[in-house]
Amino acid sequence: MPEAMDTGAATGTRVEFRVSPDRYRHWKLSTDGPVAILAMDVDEQGGLVPGYELKLNSYDLGVDIELYDAVQRLRFEHPEVRTVVITSGKPKIFCAGANIRMLAASPHGWKVNFCKFTNETRNGIEDATASSGQTYLAAVNGTASGGGYELALACDHIMLVDDRSSAVSLPELPLLGVLPGTGGLTRVSDKRHVRRDLADYFSTKSEGVGGKKAVQWRLVDEAVPRPRWDEAVAERAAELAARSSRPQDAAGVPLTPLAKDRGDDAITYAYVSARLDREAGKVDISVKGPQAGPPAGIDDARSAEFWPLAMTRELDDLILDLRTNEAGLGTWVFRTEGDQALVLAHDELLLASSGDWFANEVLHYLKRTLRRLDVTSRSLIAAIEPGSCFAGSLLELALAADRSFQLAGVFEDEDPDADPAAVTLGEINLGPLTMSNGLTRLQTRFWGDEAGYEAAAKRAGEALDAEDAEELGLVTFAPDDIDWDDELRIAVEERASFSPDALTGLEANYRFAGPETMETKIFGRLTAWQNWIFNRPNASGPDGALRRFGTGQRAVFDRKRV
Amino acid sequence: MPEAMDTGAATGTRVEFRVSPDRYRHWKLSTDGPVAILAMDVDEQGGLVPGYELKLNSYDLGVDIELYDAVQRLRFEHPEVRTVVITSGKPKIFCAGANIRMLAASPHGWKVNFCKFTNETRNGIEDATASSGQTYLAAVNGTASGGGYELALACDHIMLVDDRSSAVSLPELPLLGVLPGTGGLTRVSDKRHVRRDLADYFSTKSEGVGGKKAVQWRLVDEAVPRPRWDEAVAERAAELAARSSRPQDAAGVPLTPLAKDRGDDAITYAYVSARLDREAGKVDISVKGPQAGPPAGIDDARSAEFWPLAMTRELDDLILDLRTNEAGLGTWVFRTEGDQALVLAHDELLLASSGDWFANEVLHYLKRTLRRLDVTSRSLIAAIEPGSCFAGSLLELALAADRSFQLAGVFEDEDPDADPAAVTLGEINLGPLTMSNGLTRLQTRFWGDEAGYEAAAKRAGEALDAEDAEELGLVTFAPDDIDWDDELRIAVEERASFSPDALTGLEANYRFAGPETMETKIFGRLTAWQNWIFNRPNASGPDGALRRFGTGQRAVFDRKRV
Repeated sequence: MPEAMDTGAATGTRVEFRVSPDRYRHWKLSTDGPVAILAMDVDEQGGLVPGYELKLNSYDLGVDIELYDAVQRLRFEHPEVRTVVITSGKPKIFCAGANIRMLAASPHGWKVNFCKFTNETRNGIEDATASSGQTYLAAVNGTASGGGYELALACDHIMLVDDRSSAVSLPELPLLGVLPGTGGLTRVSDKRHVRRDLADYFSTKSEGVGGKKAVQWRLVDEAVPRPRWDEAVAERAAELAARSSRPQDAAGVPLTPLAKDRGDDAITYAYVSARLDREAGKVDISVKGPQAGPPAGIDDARSAEFWPLAMTRELDDLILDLRTNEAGLGTWVFRTEGDQALVLAHDELLLASSGDWFANEVLHYLKRTLRRLDVTSRSLIAAIEPGSCFAGSLLELALAADRSFQLAGVFEDEDPDADPAAVTLGEINLGPLTMSNGLTRLQTRFWGDEAGYEAAAKRAGEALDAEDAEELGLVTFAPDDIDWDDELRIAVEERASFSPDALTGLEANYRFAGPETMETKIFGRLTAWQNWIFNRPNASGPDGALRRFGTGQRAVFDRKRV
Repeated sequence: MPEAMDTGAATGTRVEFRVSPDRYRHWKLSTDGPVAILAMDVDEQGGLVPGYELKLNSYDLGVDIELYDAVQRLRFEHPEVRTVVITSGKPKIFCAGANIRMLAASPHGWKVNFCKFTNETRNGIEDATASSGQTYLAAVNGTASGGGYELALACDHIMLVDDRSSAVSLPELPLLGVLPGTGGLTRVSDKRHVRRDLADYFSTKSEGVGGKKAVQWRLVDEAVPRPRWDEAVAERAAELAARSSRPQDAAGVPLTPLAKDRGDDAITYAYVSARLDREAGKVDISVKGPQAGPPAGIDDARSAEFWPLAMTRELDDLILDLRTNEAGLGTWVFRTEGDQALVLAHDELLLASSGDWFANEVLHYLKRTLRRLDVTSRSLIAAIEPGSCFAGSLLELALAADRSFQLAGVFEDEDPDADPAAVTLGEINLGPLTMSNGLTRLQTRFWGDEAGYEAAAKRAGEALDAEDAEELGLVTFAPDDIDWDDELRIAVEERASFSPDALTGLEANYRFAGPETMETKIFGRLTAWQNWIFNRPNASGPDGALRRFGTGQRAVFDRKRV
């Protein structure tokens, strides 16, 4: 089915990530002072593509796109919300997880990309709790199975109705022959600290565990009888809200509709644009810096027009669009343009306003968007030329790249009097924009090389030419204008000639040196195993568990252990 | 080709892991005081199975079995050896890595199992340096490509001959469309701290990097011109030897031939035995404790007969045999028998002799063998019955299991007067036998539950019956004798009904809660990506890179990024 979608533009079935609450088909968002209710009530007929019904609050990418939108808006548009209660609008069922028929019919790449986005949204829920004082409470008012339980696992506190029928479960392994695809195993062991043998048993028991045993095993935090349910949820929501330091009387910042021109060969926003080069298998992405200095204070910045927010929203949408709709374009080449001083001035306003809720939200949103780039299965190249604007927050694009090229000197034929290309580290590169591994991109780059890190960091604020930047290890190569075009062209052509799968594996390993976190384990360890399992005949072959599910026929397995 | 081997016993092509230096076909081991030379000189015609020639010092499983044997013997039989120089016995070529024709012709499961064993041997090399004062020096006297460079990466110090033709390289991605399979990426980034963009470039450049640039990029530690080569290697070997605290005049302990009776349905050693139940897809493994108390002191224990060493050697060989030859037997059920006090007394002798080189070797060998179990892609179940001997070092088998069952009470019909089944934690469970994640199995079990850990640890030395052990979280289930047979049978049958791939993924995730190390990254992250890539048509399909290599035809890739 979504084979069509996988091939993107040509078929006209592009997935659109821009949505707003008035257009939600699957979620009901309401707020009452410090508490928001986010109720899942999936429209069975509202699947993103034809071919399946979203029964029992099961979800597809379309449902998750709305959830992502809601999570984002709650942070920006609702500074007053301190607790978000995720619950079900349907009786007896909380959420049945990802729709099986959708999964069974989807090509491998679609499943993997779908799981990645779903994972990012779950991580975003945890980030709201950790970074923003907006705590998610799972009010599991019916059975939560598979991805349904994984959604609850992303919340800070899980309440399960204790009614002898409601349970939490991870039935993927026994029923479908795959793993829970959105962080379930990692969160069960590393977040909720369920003992490994109990976790093993739980994950093979399709009916799951409910009531007191679910609490004893730490699968949920409390089991509450129905008669006390509403009251208990309200109580807990109020308690969680009381712990928050979000502002009392701040006005929200509306995330106004994102203007975007989407053609077959170009995608254009206000600050971000992309040219799609299907023949070369690459996308040329350009990001513009701000056209003027920042407002005098953060109070004057509270708007979706504020450059760091506007640029980040555009970049976020572009990444999602390209990842989902343009799988065949394997290399993204980043360029920037603008005045470095203006970027650094915007960064400084954000950093100087560190106690401010809005500045905090913008910073963390930029952090999450850059993390999306880190886990994107495309080769990332940065091209640093005269007039480019790789400074501070925009320099992160080059630091996220697998390779970067900085022109030594200028293009003699084009503009011999131009200022040579420069990169400038700012304070923002030294702290807040951490990767999933908990380190900044600069720290990761110099992992195990303290002296190299210090040498680079102490040049912060200085515009570094190609020679300096290469010497300091901030860029990979510094060709002059005679070699520039060839070197870039060869890099892109070479990339296009390699196995796309091996590149994905290579990049997934090299981008995350050093320590691991729950987030890197989810993307790096769990996802890789899941990819492998998804791709095996035991799951996806004609007699595999995923394809046989619901047919009444049992799967046929090659029993040999690999 | 090794499809036959994958199916094991039926074809009579079982792989044998027992070997000794007098039978090596591929390695030459010589020692001169504190320095050993381990020279790779692969016999082209000495492949484990027909169908390929081991040209250019390329290796297959047979070559690596000899290497493993040499690494083990150096630790036990050569207490005087402080530096092991790994070098090549052939001119111009150090090692070309795993044999490509062997890989291309091998079924998926064979490749994965081969890589796992190879990884374990590389980790063992690092363990010799870290735990045993036996430092490995890679004297790369010719080109080291792919697995050849990965072998060097496992050494503590890498010297590369600087002769304008010798280089180190990881050509797997550009030439074969797969990843380096034995830890290369992880060691490049996390051990040698090669900057990520340089690492990316290096891993796509099939001809590799040599000379000064290899040193600058940290790919090797030094590049030495040929005229100074022998002298420089000898110098460096002597320097590394001088840092060691291995004993000066100790006599080695010969690893005498391991007696083993291998039939189609049973494998029997002195202390370890296994019944192979092909119908149920399981192996019943039994481990016997020592028959008498330990020698009075460690000086009297120096022999391959010493129970902890004898038992560990048998267990090690059994794990390797079953993993390689019996892929269809997906569940291993562990039982033990014997006198718990005698096991604990042996453990105590080892722990009390902590400064002794031999006690140290035995402990670390047991540690490595248990780690082999942790990364074994089989479901592990422990059955704890009256007369069993799950105490101290043998209790680790139950702690390594995915689930454990301890009989509550006794088998009333069989032996109503027996002592009930008990488990006993010993001091050995609280420290030295760490898993790959750096934690003990007990710490991993109670990861995030400090109180649970303390409650269990403080009962060390006490024989705990099923009720206590279950309450403390040391065993999973405690059925009585009415339910015992059914519960165990159902657990095994259920396991056999699930997708073997999904079980492998589940176990690989749940067995390693908590922190990650280079070793867990290699097995958990890198291996999973490699498994996925190996299994994709872009590598292993009829037009994939691995199958097309050497045919003169280019691989045909599905260019969509996943």
